[in-house]
Amino acid sequence: MDHTKISQKEKNNENDKGCTPVTVLGLGPMGQSLAEAFLKYGHPTTVWNRTAEKAESLVKQGAVLANTVADAITASSLIVICVLDYDASQAILTQVVNDLKGRTLVNLTTSSPEKARKTAIWASEHGFDYLDGAIQTPPLAIGTSDALILYSGGEYAYNKHQKTLKSLGGTATYLGTDPGRAAAYDISLLDMFWTSISGYVHALAVAKSENIAAKDFAKYAQELIKTFPYIMTHFADDVDTGQYPGGQSNMISAKAGMEHIIHTVQGHGIDASVLSAIKAIAQKAIDEGYGTDGYSRLVEVVNRA
Amino acid sequence: MDHTKISQKEKNNENDKGCTPVTVLGLGPMGQSLAEAFLKYGHPTTVWNRTAEKAESLVKQGAVLANTVADAITASSLIVICVLDYDASQAILTQVVNDLKGRTLVNLTTSSPEKARKTAIWASEHGFDYLDGAIQTPPLAIGTSDALILYSGGEYAYNKHQKTLKSLGGTATYLGTDPGRAAAYDISLLDMFWTSISGYVHALAVAKSENIAAKDFAKYAQELIKTFPYIMTHFADDVDTGQYPGGQSNMISAKAGMEHIIHTVQGHGIDASVLSAIKAIAQKAIDEGYGTDGYSRLVEVVNRA
Repeated sequence: MDHTKISQKEKNNENDKGCTPVTVLGLGPMGQSLAEAFLKYGHPTTVWNRTAEKAESLVKQGAVLANTVADAITASSLIVICVLDYDASQAILTQVVNDLKGRTLVNLTTSSPEKARKTAIWASEHGFDYLDGAIQTPPLAIGTSDALILYSGGEYAYNKHQKTLKSLGGTATYLGTDPGRAAAYDISLLDMFWTSISGYVHALAVAKSENIAAKDFAKYAQELIKTFPYIMTHFADDVDTGQYPGGQSNMISAKAGMEHIIHTVQGHGIDASVLSAIKAIAQKAIDEGYGTDGYSRLVEVVNRA
Repeated sequence: MDHTKISQKEKNNENDKGCTPVTVLGLGPMGQSLAEAFLKYGHPTTVWNRTAEKAESLVKQGAVLANTVADAITASSLIVICVLDYDASQAILTQVVNDLKGRTLVNLTTSSPEKARKTAIWASEHGFDYLDGAIQTPPLAIGTSDALILYSGGEYAYNKHQKTLKSLGGTATYLGTDPGRAAAYDISLLDMFWTSISGYVHALAVAKSENIAAKDFAKYAQELIKTFPYIMTHFADDVDTGQYPGGQSNMISAKAGMEHIIHTVQGHGIDASVLSAIKAIAQKAIDEGYGTDGYSRLVEVVNRA
């Protein structure tokens, strides 16, 4: 097989039904969902995984299992990769970089803005189009209207394959030509996600220590969460204007509230290390003279670590 | 003035319009909003604050300013107190405990379950009804349909004054006769609130370091938050059943995700102490053999600090 040539069919990017052939590299839970979504929408789908067993269910659904990464790549002009991390994706792609020439690589592996930009430069040096993507949804939501995937980088690649990528789900958002943009949003959103969800799990532990059933607590937590969009908009305004009005709630009262929670939580024998770390940052803001500012001021305080 | 007697009018608990007279002790932003709400709904309202100036606007709206705590208490059979903390409320109430006899005290000061229970015992020793309350809303929402206040403790007191307390806003929820119940919910919800909102502010800092406008980031953060109620219900089921299935996302992958975020965040010169503390708990769970369990398993891990 001559990997340097791309067949006429691949150049046309379509099968008889007008569907572009796609290759999916990496068949973890997310990779499997991606391949399933492409198959569901009629795309000839070639798959590859380090351990071939992961492909079994997909092959039953009509996927072609490639024996080698090179075979997988030369089967399609659109290559989607979703593996554990940047090192894993680089380990796979470096060995076949010449085969990528003239094709489009969509990297849905979680990455950092820097690494996404580095990959884009590497792609342009080796003559293939690069689109970086960040999946904001669990595997089960892929292919449904709930899916949200952020893209940035190669505009030509995005426009060319937008229709095919729509197979992956509801909202595909192109954030611009900076290849690091999708990863920058991704990192920020994941930062919020893990911190917030940890706050909820910790609160469940506190509630449990007071014999409150988790399902009872969840109802109130879900009510509380409804107030967040309002606060989020306000804090965003503060940050964009650089004004942090203390008004009805300031850093000093926030810190006092946290101390009260930490005291009670520790009294129940529960770990309070996370809220203690949060309190320390609030204290730093107070020490720097921002005690009567609003809590959103912390945006500037954490940024001078 | 004989503080030991309660006038007939007070015993009837109503003015000519059928509104119960109320006394509000403490006129911080929250106390002021409480008094305003009572006035708005026609309740004869007596107010007291350590510094009388805070009462100015309320007096213009029709409130009576009491010169002493004792005068304030003897003016109404329903006393509402909302001050900085338990120590502050005790300092105010201890000096007038005999005046409280036969009346109802509603304590909306943020407290702990233990302190609420202690206050309830103290109230019964001194012959007055005690209802503990926890306000879940900012001062501006008091008196509106958005307000949520949790109550627990004296059932008789709650039933007797339910109509009057409705003046404070939309949803008043009675959580049962354990006086500590409202505070237990309050502490758990505040724990979640401060951790989650810190996660958002930190994410704004990360986004800012990537030149993403806060208002642009807020839009995606608000989308992400929409997925929380679903996750909350699932995690609550895990906790109530004591089963923590890893399924499509487990502790090991969560920790790997956090490491990736921490690395990027620190690369931007941003404090990562909070997520590092969260990661340390996830690591503890992995070390204890829960690596393939779901993230909700942390409920048990933090509870053996």
